Amino acid sequence: MKLGKVLGTLGLAAAIAVGANAADRTVHWKLAMTWGTSLPPFTDAVHEMANLVKELSGGKFIIRIDSKNKHKSPFGILDMVKLGQYDMGHSASYYWKGKDLATLPFTTMPFGMIAPEQYAWFYYGGGMKLMQKVYAKHKVYSFPGGNTGNQMGGWFRKEINSVNDLKGLKMRIPGFAGEIMSELGVTVTNIAPGELYTSLERGTIDALEWVGPGMDIRMGFHKVAPYYYTGWHEPGTELQFLVNIKKFKKLSPKYQEILKTAMKLSAYDMYIENYHMSAMAWAKIKTDYPNIKIKSFPPSVIAAMKKANEKLLARDEAKNAEFKEVIESQKAYMKKVRAWTKISDYEYLNTTMNIKPAK
Amino acid sequence: MKLGKVLGTLGLAAAIAVGANAADRTVHWKLAMTWGTSLPPFTDAVHEMANLVKELSGGKFIIRIDSKNKHKSPFGILDMVKLGQYDMGHSASYYWKGKDLATLPFTTMPFGMIAPEQYAWFYYGGGMKLMQKVYAKHKVYSFPGGNTGNQMGGWFRKEINSVNDLKGLKMRIPGFAGEIMSELGVTVTNIAPGELYTSLERGTIDALEWVGPGMDIRMGFHKVAPYYYTGWHEPGTELQFLVNIKKFKKLSPKYQEILKTAMKLSAYDMYIENYHMSAMAWAKIKTDYPNIKIKSFPPSVIAAMKKANEKLLARDEAKNAEFKEVIESQKAYMKKVRAWTKISDYEYLNTTMNIKPAK
Repeated sequence: MKLGKVLGTLGLAAAIAVGANAADRTVHWKLAMTWGTSLPPFTDAVHEMANLVKELSGGKFIIRIDSKNKHKSPFGILDMVKLGQYDMGHSASYYWKGKDLATLPFTTMPFGMIAPEQYAWFYYGGGMKLMQKVYAKHKVYSFPGGNTGNQMGGWFRKEINSVNDLKGLKMRIPGFAGEIMSELGVTVTNIAPGELYTSLERGTIDALEWVGPGMDIRMGFHKVAPYYYTGWHEPGTELQFLVNIKKFKKLSPKYQEILKTAMKLSAYDMYIENYHMSAMAWAKIKTDYPNIKIKSFPPSVIAAMKKANEKLLARDEAKNAEFKEVIESQKAYMKKVRAWTKISDYEYLNTTMNIKPAK
Repeated sequence: MKLGKVLGTLGLAAAIAVGANAADRTVHWKLAMTWGTSLPPFTDAVHEMANLVKELSGGKFIIRIDSKNKHKSPFGILDMVKLGQYDMGHSASYYWKGKDLATLPFTTMPFGMIAPEQYAWFYYGGGMKLMQKVYAKHKVYSFPGGNTGNQMGGWFRKEINSVNDLKGLKMRIPGFAGEIMSELGVTVTNIAPGELYTSLERGTIDALEWVGPGMDIRMGFHKVAPYYYTGWHEPGTELQFLVNIKKFKKLSPKYQEILKTAMKLSAYDMYIENYHMSAMAWAKIKTDYPNIKIKSFPPSVIAAMKKANEKLLARDEAKNAEFKEVIESQKAYMKKVRAWTKISDYEYLNTTMNIKPAK
């Protein structure tokens, strides 16, 4: 083909892309997710998003979802979206901390914000802007992709009464929380979700954390590690939609709006869905699994975790200016928003929950 | 016009309405809201919803918003939407309790669920189905319209140390909470928002509740009633979008989906926006308004309120079977979901908030 003809064809295509009817072109996208075919509520959020995009576009914007069983690269999502092998992905920001430390805090942080506080930071406290700044160098946009709510602290074979009880323990706990545990003498390992139960049963590990009752009970951990600890390390885990920037910019304004709306709504919905799933699972724990022992870490252990947390944050802030910027933004916002949580929902629960009606 | 021709025209119109291109017809709707032109975040939710509908429809589904300044009937929204004078509305379900008691619990209930618990009830615990059942007799659909989060218990001139201190007090507090206060000896009145400050200043009332710091401080109540009480009576106030059922059914499936999506997303967003507004206002209270005295009602007062609450619920459940059905559904769901809140966010705050890092 002659150069003139090639340019002419490209020009025509460009004209169609920005034209008045361009919004209603048929578009086919592919999404790669970290998860297997069915891992509710994570995969529910992805399917809800894709269904919404389809409905809102009158069936013209179609997103095909590939699970890890198909693409075989659960922790390659960022790279595949960056390179345009996939138009978008669903994963969690803290999985990329080895590539870029500044991506870590966009999921959740130990002793950090709970879900509504963190959403307020994202949408009204500067979080979204910082997230796009961090991800721009990876040529992708990142959007909230569904919140798990407060995660449980994990399953232990033995009760933890002091920091000494942690020393030498082999535990699966990823992310920054894993580094804190390591600082306290825990041998931290990462194990693929499919092998967690067997590892715990065979004693390859002594403890692990996963998500919360809605997702944990069906894994069977309680059968071998009956001490179930309340959370400290992932108070509001937000998953992530990744979108290739070039591909996004090629969408019509209408389709961009449809995609953003569908991602935002399905993220919120996953938060509420998992709240429900956790509540239903929790309600059955006492009757169906009377051997599970619910515990909270004692103040001495929490104090030691907090000390390690501050030490490691200072270490990483010194290493990476962008990480520091995100952490400092979260800290400053949390100071304000936590004071409100404390006087609203927390104080409401505190002053009303345990008081019986007068006789 | 002959009958045959009329029918023919109607038939053609119907064919167009359900045809392949019907989704892209231009549609003009009108919405009436209870509020004045600008009352953030309430009016923000309405504008976000209308803007989203416009964007998602490529500018073809337009919703005009009329404030109470225009339609002059802030508490006539349900009737105007029912009669089709407006296609939709924005208000709060508990305003219709005089017309239909069963509408009351869809906003919030004293000692009831906090926002994420209540959203879980709506979307996964049967709440939406019950709401449509109650509203079907009014020929409208009702959808969540934005949550204020936990509301503060109100502004008082004097400290409340016992139930005796409530007796004879004149207070503006609407809804079921007002009936509880009345049961405890308070003289309850309702006053239009525009006259609240003057009524408090002149001593027409001794106390009032409004929303929370984000909206209250700008009203100036703290200047005349410095005791600011934490919440018990509106733990998760959900506003409401009302939609005329006939009008909704005339929309194409695509426009129906667009409208539902826009309403659902802007409701969630308002919850997060008000969380932010409350947090920012709260952060300034101690420095900018040092004379405000933050208090929680003492256990003896809470116990008396709970007793009155149970008595009045029993009275109203006996009166109205549908009200009973909604209340019992909420109670059963709350029992489960509250146990989860208690062991997740509440326990997290409890065990981590006040512990300092180890030395």
